[in-house]
Amino acid sequence: MTQLYQRVAFVGLGLIASSMALAMRRGGLVAETTGTARSAETRAIATEIALVDRVTDTAAQAVQGADLVVLCVPVGAMAAVAAEIAPHLARGATVTDVGSVKQAVNDAVGPHMPDHVHFIPGHPLAGTEHSGPRAGFAELFDNRWTILTPPDGTDADALDRLTRVWQGIGAQVDVMDPAHHDLVLAVTSHTPHLIAYTMVGVADDLRRVTDSEVIKYSAAGFRDFTRIAASDPTMWRDVFLTNKDATLEILGRFTEELFALQRAIRRGDGDHLHAYFTRTRAIRRGIIDAGQDTDAPDFGRSNR
Amino acid sequence: MTQLYQRVAFVGLGLIASSMALAMRRGGLVAETTGTARSAETRAIATEIALVDRVTDTAAQAVQGADLVVLCVPVGAMAAVAAEIAPHLARGATVTDVGSVKQAVNDAVGPHMPDHVHFIPGHPLAGTEHSGPRAGFAELFDNRWTILTPPDGTDADALDRLTRVWQGIGAQVDVMDPAHHDLVLAVTSHTPHLIAYTMVGVADDLRRVTDSEVIKYSAAGFRDFTRIAASDPTMWRDVFLTNKDATLEILGRFTEELFALQRAIRRGDGDHLHAYFTRTRAIRRGIIDAGQDTDAPDFGRSNR
Ligand SMILES: NC(=O)c1ccc[n+]([C@@H]2O[C@H](COP(=O)([O-])OP(=O)(O)OC[C@H]3O[C@@H](n4cnc5c(N)ncnc54)[C@H](OP(=O)(O)O)[C@@H]3O)[C@@H](O)[C@H]2O)c1
Ligand SMILES: NC(=O)c1ccc[n+]([C@@H]2O[C@H](COP(=O)([O-])OP(=O)(O)OC[C@H]3O[C@@H](n4cnc5c(N)ncnc54)[C@H](OP(=O)(O)O)[C@@H]3O)[C@@H](O)[C@H]2O)c1
Repeated sequence: MTQLYQRVAFVGLGLIASSMALAMRRGGLVAETTGTARSAETRAIATEIALVDRVTDTAAQAVQGADLVVLCVPVGAMAAVAAEIAPHLARGATVTDVGSVKQAVNDAVGPHMPDHVHFIPGHPLAGTEHSGPRAGFAELFDNRWTILTPPDGTDADALDRLTRVWQGIGAQVDVMDPAHHDLVLAVTSHTPHLIAYTMVGVADDLRRVTDSEVIKYSAAGFRDFTRIAASDPTMWRDVFLTNKDATLEILGRFTEELFALQRAIRRGDGDHLHAYFTRTRAIRRGIIDAGQDTDAPDFGRSNR
Repeated sequence: MTQLYQRVAFVGLGLIASSMALAMRRGGLVAETTGTARSAETRAIATEIALVDRVTDTAAQAVQGADLVVLCVPVGAMAAVAAEIAPHLARGATVTDVGSVKQAVNDAVGPHMPDHVHFIPGHPLAGTEHSGPRAGFAELFDNRWTILTPPDGTDADALDRLTRVWQGIGAQVDVMDPAHHDLVLAVTSHTPHLIAYTMVGVADDLRRVTDSEVIKYSAAGFRDFTRIAASDPTMWRDVFLTNKDATLEILGRFTEELFALQRAIRRGDGDHLHAYFTRTRAIRRGIIDAGQDTDAPDFGRSNR
């Protein structure tokens, strides 16, 4: 694989940045990597495990001379980081991000970007419930999708190079309008996470069922919810604050459907329930056919 | 391991029965197994793959001479099966079941049971989204819990023997009051399943986000919901119809909490969201510590 960039700078060195850095190294895709994080602790860990070639104290230092800059901080921190790095960006550099919301990042970062750089927001649809520089692994993006939301008039060569680096670290790339991205993600990720958090909160609240019972008997379905609900609170707070409209729209529909099912249970309307549960099976089949999951006979991932 | 029963009869030969039969064989726990299912097709498959030693055409035939009878049909079918087998049960036999709801099974089966048998309802907290006689595997119950809900005055020896057979096929056994079982399961299993079904239904309904987009981008959280929502519609219909009160209670609390989070999103109350998402992490940690899940860095189970 030829080297696509001479120097890649990561601002933020958490799960996503560390996975990208390891995957770029695996693929021999870039000549040099630099990076920084907010805390001295994270920077020290990154140095200790040699996550990037050079750890800098500030974002301004990290981006100097970089032809690719990747913003890997929570969505709510993007604007401040953009303002900080803007004066130090190299001419012709590409600036991208990995934030889970795209319209808000576009609005927060775009205005800070000088005309001489290419700003192409992005979002890898891959993650785990773990955070920080030690959480990364090179295979995170393999066979996963990354969505890029290039603004109108984006330079075709810059887009092509960024696409190839994502492909080089294992992902498939799609291009989408940021508003559509935010709606799709509200359905496939943001609302499911909110619901999982809510269900786990309910379980924790209930006096008549103890936490130890919830934990002991979690294999019956609840466990999958707790995995989702263990993700980083700051990241998810920012997602809901910045993808407010789409999340509220999907939540509204969710509540409507839930009320219909609740009424069917109350009335003992077994036909309604059976028809609903039959329809939802088809989507699962589609996911397995699309290679986005395996069909192994364990519920969750522990029976192996 | 000494043989605990001379002849075990399975009524219903789906996922749970086939897993039990394979696990009993693995452990050399019983001398002989018999079984039957509603359809000729399932009986033929069971014969073909030699799931039990003898497949019979009727439940009445299956239970004859058995010292352990395991009812492995959907909860809504338990009463009819109990009525059918009652006259044919051997003196001193133990009759148990594996239904996901316990008060309703107790009420449906109990009245049919002659005085000369021991009726001890049970529920293994293990399963997959797959059904039928080919779905079973001997490891299904390993390191999982089975809850028994013996009625007052249950014979201690009969309970002990049943406990040991569950332990012999890999499970840990707890004893509980049926009403408490139903509430615990409403929290850890039944409500999570209903919510997952609802979310998958919403995704399927939405015109502006296509099914193919939902499927393509499902790895971002939604996929775990589809796995839950792919389970057998008949089984789940029966669960909600027969565990109505506890499910509706938990659903009511869920809706309350969801509305509070929804309001926080609408108002931009990041502190409320952050505090909620921090609290729910603790439960996840407890599940991992309790050995009910692994801590491997994949979200779902496909990154391997
Ligand atoms: N986790 C996922 O599943 C996932 C998936 C796709 C996309 N994303 C997106 O990827 C981005 C990073 O997520 P992650 O999972 O890699 O997070 P993470 O592991 O928690 O790492 C976040 C990094 O951002 C830094 N940071 C946090 N707040 C900051 C602030 N206010 N100013 C400057 N730096 C700050 C942190 O520095 P310290 O370590 O010094 O605190 C850390 O290095 C987020 O925008 C998220 O939406 C996440
Ligand atoms: N699946 C799980 O995750 C899970 C976990 C714990 C407990 N359970 C409980 O275990 C029981 C069996 O579930 P399963 O997953 O093994 O189901 P399954 O794979 O769908 O098998 C059900 C069996 O019951 C038979 N059956 C269905 N309806 C019947 C009726 N009306 N009369 C007589 N027989 C009938 C079926 O016969 P045919 O094959 O001929 O149709 C089949 O052999 C249920 O009570 C369920 O609540 C399930």
